[in-house]
Amino acid sequence: MARIGLLGHGVVGGGVAEILLKNAELLKGRVGQGLELAAICDLRDFSALPYASLFTKDAQALLARPDIDIVVECMGGVEPARSFVLRAIDSGKHVVTSNKALVVAAGEEIIQKAAEKGVRFLYEASTGGGIPVIGPLRQNLAANHIGSIAGILNGTTNYILTRMRDGGASFAAALEEAQQKGYAEQDPAADVEGDDARRKICILCHVAFGSPLSDEGMFTEGITLLEKQDMLYARELGRSVKLIALGERVEGGFRASVAPAMLPGDHPLAGVSDVFNAVLVNGDMVGDVLFYGRGAGQLPTASAIVGDIVDIALHPSDRAIEPPAPLRCLDALSGQVRLFSRVLCPLTPGAQQEVEGLFPGARLVTVEGEAFAEEFALITEEGVESELRARFERFDLPHGAVIRYISP
Amino acid sequence: MARIGLLGHGVVGGGVAEILLKNAELLKGRVGQGLELAAICDLRDFSALPYASLFTKDAQALLARPDIDIVVECMGGVEPARSFVLRAIDSGKHVVTSNKALVVAAGEEIIQKAAEKGVRFLYEASTGGGIPVIGPLRQNLAANHIGSIAGILNGTTNYILTRMRDGGASFAAALEEAQQKGYAEQDPAADVEGDDARRKICILCHVAFGSPLSDEGMFTEGITLLEKQDMLYARELGRSVKLIALGERVEGGFRASVAPAMLPGDHPLAGVSDVFNAVLVNGDMVGDVLFYGRGAGQLPTASAIVGDIVDIALHPSDRAIEPPAPLRCLDALSGQVRLFSRVLCPLTPGAQQEVEGLFPGARLVTVEGEAFAEEFALITEEGVESELRARFERFDLPHGAVIRYISP
Repeated sequence: MARIGLLGHGVVGGGVAEILLKNAELLKGRVGQGLELAAICDLRDFSALPYASLFTKDAQALLARPDIDIVVECMGGVEPARSFVLRAIDSGKHVVTSNKALVVAAGEEIIQKAAEKGVRFLYEASTGGGIPVIGPLRQNLAANHIGSIAGILNGTTNYILTRMRDGGASFAAALEEAQQKGYAEQDPAADVEGDDARRKICILCHVAFGSPLSDEGMFTEGITLLEKQDMLYARELGRSVKLIALGERVEGGFRASVAPAMLPGDHPLAGVSDVFNAVLVNGDMVGDVLFYGRGAGQLPTASAIVGDIVDIALHPSDRAIEPPAPLRCLDALSGQVRLFSRVLCPLTPGAQQEVEGLFPGARLVTVEGEAFAEEFALITEEGVESELRARFERFDLPHGAVIRYISP
Repeated sequence: MARIGLLGHGVVGGGVAEILLKNAELLKGRVGQGLELAAICDLRDFSALPYASLFTKDAQALLARPDIDIVVECMGGVEPARSFVLRAIDSGKHVVTSNKALVVAAGEEIIQKAAEKGVRFLYEASTGGGIPVIGPLRQNLAANHIGSIAGILNGTTNYILTRMRDGGASFAAALEEAQQKGYAEQDPAADVEGDDARRKICILCHVAFGSPLSDEGMFTEGITLLEKQDMLYARELGRSVKLIALGERVEGGFRASVAPAMLPGDHPLAGVSDVFNAVLVNGDMVGDVLFYGRGAGQLPTASAIVGDIVDIALHPSDRAIEPPAPLRCLDALSGQVRLFSRVLCPLTPGAQQEVEGLFPGARLVTVEGEAFAEEFALITEEGVESELRARFERFDLPHGAVIRYISP
């Protein structure tokens, strides 16, 4: 019997409780022992629930219980989650979390303490919700040097972009729709500004490239500057605009970033719509592999957590796979790219001269129709990203969002 | 140090040797010990290879070596692979294989012997090539009752269908092209008649539904009856024709089959083209999850094998996860479906009456253009599949392939 203490009974924690109770028989059969939900800590009142007797408001009391083997942290945020998790590990308990903010902010410290204490710390649910990604990257793809990871890792922004494209909605209208459907928080900043996706790609880079759990130096741009006109140009060009979190192995290290990108129509991530997430992994032996599913939601995320619990229950004293030798995090904008941007004035000879002065060889795109009469778009030649972006800063003509234009 | 003996140095076995040698340092770092390729058995002459000294033609001598911990079987076929694998297990060696014919024909016997001897038997590479599927299904999705598995599990047939659709090639021409590109064997029967896909869905049903490794009673129809006209109707209907291997949990058990299906354009498997494979898994907690990549090829398949070797090297005395309680394999054609078929005569009132007599409520599809002047298509109402298929046997009008028409 493995006994589980749950910290936090919000959306995800409630899902963990539901799975442990509803699929208890399945889990017992598969693990060869029961997985018993022994205690739940939450400050709110859940006295109406059938398992109300499990609740406590005293986290320290839960963490002190010697009969609890595995602590599941679903509180969110860094503190007090960090202190509770460290305390749990100090008491010899294994920890499972879905909390990406915690993993990025305190993962190094937690991993070190877990190694000292000989317990396990797993966080499959922190990235990609229910989609198995970290496990397969660590285990099934262990024979590969991972070359790149490109992901649509935030369902909220992907839903908004899908609505802007298919429904012709503005960013503001699509965001409001996402909020009404419960896909976006009332304060949507962490999603739409790309921070959520950055934390997730940071975690995946740690798994794939052995890099420290730190998102410093990772370039982040969200979707707040995108307009539905960008989607229309993308359609004209046979492309899709997606918020892509990218980690790529390059000479001397790896680069990581989150930024809007205009993908070719046949790119494996181009067709990923609505709230779905997908992660495209390239390994030197396996080539491209894609993992796709719902990247959030109560039961999918809880499914990943319970998968980690099962792993621990089966292998409490596991010899875990070592991370690969760490790559160094390089300047996120040091790679060669092409950039797309709308230019918000008619394509006069003067405007053309202005563009060609700053972006020699740029491709100019015009679209028929009244909505496009007062603007055109440019796609730069390939160049070093930081230099190209700096040129947009110096660009005298008014312009729209700067979007990576993925070749071909 | 874990020492590996390799049986068979063909395409896949050669890939395993290549990965073990080329990524030796990566693997040593991740496992915490070296994975040494100790011996290779193959009857052919490989004396020109830099690792020629590892070769032997005597499998029994390799299996008798006490210093070999893990035997990797890449010979293909049932015998002598089965005898060699049983012998290896009898001597206390773990076994990894990519051989789906072996897993289906002798998996039960091998699994039982491995349990008796306390060694491991892994076969991730037998299904989906390099795409992690069996591992994630077993481990990450362990909290789920799996509801269904639908897969494009054979790259050869998917390539042929893609060429028939995009290139307007006939089945024969597309097959020849696949053979020229090395995607199809000179004797393509196992691929085009669906047997390869059936073995793979049988293995996935074992993992997901706990069923015995036996493909008896699984309905199998390949793609040999499909014509490019079928692809044109599919396009008119906004659909794609794919060879779908399907395992689905139903009241009282599960059903499994391989058959061509006409998928809606937005189905997650509709866009899987060329030689790519994909597996769509539905779990009661996680919802839909898709795994996608190259389902065959030397290094992708070898990548999966080495992933299994890593698993064993880390956890030689693993408490493996138990399969779920076994579901019973039911009549593959007992489900409710709709069926599509071309009718190879003009849509006269007489023909219409004939169709309506046998298939009341069927939708009739006509397409403009000379190529369609002498034919139409019908889509039946939903009914029990065995009954609907029996009616096609009694159907007096000449007709094309019978294809599952997936709702909506």
